[in-house]
Amino acid sequence: MTETEQALTDQVIARLDGAQDARYRRVMTSLISHLHDFVRDVELTEEEWFSAIQFLTRTGQTCSDLRQEFILLSDTLGVSMLVDAINHRYPAGATETTVFGPFHRPGAPAMKVWSDIAVGTKGQLLFMSGQVLDASTGLPVAGAMLDIWQADGEDGLYDVQRPGVPMLGRGVFRSGDVGHYGLRAIKPTHYPIPSDGPVGEMLRKMGRHPYRPAHIHAMVSAPGYKTLITHVFMDGDPYLGSDAVFGVKDSLIVKPKSHAPGLAPDGTHSAQEFLTIDFDFRLAPASNDTP
Amino acid sequence: MTETEQALTDQVIARLDGAQDARYRRVMTSLISHLHDFVRDVELTEEEWFSAIQFLTRTGQTCSDLRQEFILLSDTLGVSMLVDAINHRYPAGATETTVFGPFHRPGAPAMKVWSDIAVGTKGQLLFMSGQVLDASTGLPVAGAMLDIWQADGEDGLYDVQRPGVPMLGRGVFRSGDVGHYGLRAIKPTHYPIPSDGPVGEMLRKMGRHPYRPAHIHAMVSAPGYKTLITHVFMDGDPYLGSDAVFGVKDSLIVKPKSHAPGLAPDGTHSAQEFLTIDFDFRLAPASNDTP
Repeated sequence: MTETEQALTDQVIARLDGAQDARYRRVMTSLISHLHDFVRDVELTEEEWFSAIQFLTRTGQTCSDLRQEFILLSDTLGVSMLVDAINHRYPAGATETTVFGPFHRPGAPAMKVWSDIAVGTKGQLLFMSGQVLDASTGLPVAGAMLDIWQADGEDGLYDVQRPGVPMLGRGVFRSGDVGHYGLRAIKPTHYPIPSDGPVGEMLRKMGRHPYRPAHIHAMVSAPGYKTLITHVFMDGDPYLGSDAVFGVKDSLIVKPKSHAPGLAPDGTHSAQEFLTIDFDFRLAPASNDTP
Repeated sequence: MTETEQALTDQVIARLDGAQDARYRRVMTSLISHLHDFVRDVELTEEEWFSAIQFLTRTGQTCSDLRQEFILLSDTLGVSMLVDAINHRYPAGATETTVFGPFHRPGAPAMKVWSDIAVGTKGQLLFMSGQVLDASTGLPVAGAMLDIWQADGEDGLYDVQRPGVPMLGRGVFRSGDVGHYGLRAIKPTHYPIPSDGPVGEMLRKMGRHPYRPAHIHAMVSAPGYKTLITHVFMDGDPYLGSDAVFGVKDSLIVKPKSHAPGLAPDGTHSAQEFLTIDFDFRLAPASNDTP
């Protein structure tokens, strides 16, 4: 590296002196510094630079109302999970967070305890239940809102990925007096993120697969607590160790228990075999001194 | 920063173990490492992350056959000049390089010495001449090809920026027996880079203007030498100290000399006032051990 090459970085950063917004100046200063360090570190060739320009252009042009390829890029480079981690430094004992993902829909139907969110979707019957708890005191949180969503159990597709399908695989529940919640769903399956665009090309060059391990999404909120956005992962999934978007945390993996036909957790008789999972959501109290 | 946040970076980098191409693995390892360092350094918020996603998406969608907004972004963040510097570490004495820019057109007309590249374009008459020299020996290089292009002298627009205008402000010359070249042009003016897109928004938030100081482009090549891509800048331009793309190097600035009507450098009589600039192009010998 020559002196000129370092001086150039200083010159670009100095040009931010006129920025009105101090935070913008701080963020762009760091961005320029790290971006230039990267270029110097690998001694980027002109051909590589032009490939990068073309890759970013294609990524932007792959975005549409139905697809956000730059979020996919952020996800697959681990940036989304890093931003999630930095912005949700919850106290020990609180349920860990993971990526929100692009498949949430506002306005899912309000449902009573033990309702079926997956009527008519393919997959193995699964009852999911547990408590919503205060992560500090361990006491139950009554009246918490649980927004739950999942893909089907065979193709791993969400309702929004199937043209013409109404809202399905979604429901909003309330925890009861002792913080209890319960719902009927289907066992999710692993599925690939969209891999027919620039991010798919990148994954192939990286020698990576595009799969996410099976999971059920949850957003849990209650007054006085930080909103929790997380997944519940299924133990035994072959992609738990290599999630394409790095969303897995050990504490979020649960092992479904198999049951013969008979009495189900909702008090009914199930004529078919079924699975149960037990998962408690431990909410971090809201406060002003942490994000 | 928590341990988890650093561990995530290691996990993303480890996922490159299956990459076939060692150079790709090296470049992406460095990119991921620097990108994550940036996110941790500024503790990027979720809102800032989403603004960045939207900015990059708009940048990709602003690109067309006539406009490359990601190159503009690279230029205005000093990345293009850094890549140029790293890839053209020429020996002392060689003419310094600068950005190629988006306005070169292959196939400009071959012209004889002292031809006018700017027939009919607005601006002050200017004669540009000098020698093409070997940077090591100082000896003249005969038969070198000089591809010269410039914007007009009033609006700062290139032919390609004016719909329906044929090739104009361009010519390809050959150096003579003593390496001499000469041409007739017009004094260029400063001009803004396109600033009605995302890059323009960024410059405004940075408190920066979009201007490039006046310059004439040159690409000079000869067998046995590295191809030189550079600009000749006009001394006195108000934007020499703040080029929007960081392309200025002191050694590339020349002061045009004013002349009263009379004998011009091409041996003709000029009825109008004119300017002259004298600039030698010193070529680095080609060799295998430097890029």
